[in-house]
Amino acid sequence: MAKSLEYLTEALRRLPGVGPKSAQRMAFHLLQHDREGAAMLSRALYQAVESVNHCALCNTFTEAEVCDMCADEARDRRLLCVVETPADQVMIEQTLTYKGLYFVLMGRLSPLDGIGPKDIHLEKLLARAADGVVGEVVLATNFTNEGEATAHYISEMLKARGLAVSRLARGVPVGGELEYVDAGTIARAMLDRRST
Amino acid sequence: MAKSLEYLTEALRRLPGVGPKSAQRMAFHLLQHDREGAAMLSRALYQAVESVNHCALCNTFTEAEVCDMCADEARDRRLLCVVETPADQVMIEQTLTYKGLYFVLMGRLSPLDGIGPKDIHLEKLLARAADGVVGEVVLATNFTNEGEATAHYISEMLKARGLAVSRLARGVPVGGELEYVDAGTIARAMLDRRST
Repeated sequence: MAKSLEYLTEALRRLPGVGPKSAQRMAFHLLQHDREGAAMLSRALYQAVESVNHCALCNTFTEAEVCDMCADEARDRRLLCVVETPADQVMIEQTLTYKGLYFVLMGRLSPLDGIGPKDIHLEKLLARAADGVVGEVVLATNFTNEGEATAHYISEMLKARGLAVSRLARGVPVGGELEYVDAGTIARAMLDRRST
Repeated sequence: MAKSLEYLTEALRRLPGVGPKSAQRMAFHLLQHDREGAAMLSRALYQAVESVNHCALCNTFTEAEVCDMCADEARDRRLLCVVETPADQVMIEQTLTYKGLYFVLMGRLSPLDGIGPKDIHLEKLLARAADGVVGEVVLATNFTNEGEATAHYISEMLKARGLAVSRLARGVPVGGELEYVDAGTIARAMLDRRST
């Protein structure tokens, strides 16, 4: 096979979830049917690597010193929502229920993978949350084992500094039928039941 | 979201089998955990687009005028095997049962997708097969409806020019249990049965 095709196939395998077969299929597809797309992707990668860095305030990806959302004067600066990834942030924004600011960990605590407090920028979070304006930190990490552990760790850390910390509510999902919801979720929903 | 991140996510969607969610996950992964991989992929794409073209003889991807295999004097020039893709060629090479040359269609006839004889380089194949040296053309397109139709079309075209044409044998796969093999395959294996 042509050298630069082999090199391309190898490089495509650096993408998450792409194995040798997919990489080969992608390389063939681009060269056979979409050279324009390949050139476009090449430029986009170069540009992103060159220009994208982390927001000084919320740690998300941005090309400026401070991202657009952190710079937005209309957001409520007393609320700080902690999420694992920019994708989680996008999901919360889509709900239109939250008008505060965010802090993006870019990961979660995962001792088994060697990801500790330093890797998820907890010192930066601590400095951010203790700015004197933030009145409540809303923990919106995932409800997986690792996300829960991360929330617990951050909660302890922030409460020790006298900050108010909350966590997204757990319970039965909207549209959920009890028969098909797992027992752990129902147990939590029972314990956290609300008066109506 | 940062502009160049949006542009990267959009560009990643040009890859086959990559939807909006995967593209976003890939972009985040590259920027957060593998900027070196992103830079490498950018260079590989650029280099491949710039340098890879089609072999003048067999139509496969190559950086030279004629690919390494077509230039290899040790191959049997009397045999020409027609495959749909370079991946198929690699599979046949791995069997070590074939020492002839190849012609890579880079596709298959598919009228529903608007892919006709011109799109799979049949004029180039015709010129290649009629070089006076090729004595037998082995059709190794897939045994799908489209692959079979392509084989049939090429077979008629080449036989009209007096060339000998063969097709890979069909039958029960190695390791196949009759109980679990489809009836069409067994029927074909029965019709094509061989004396032992």
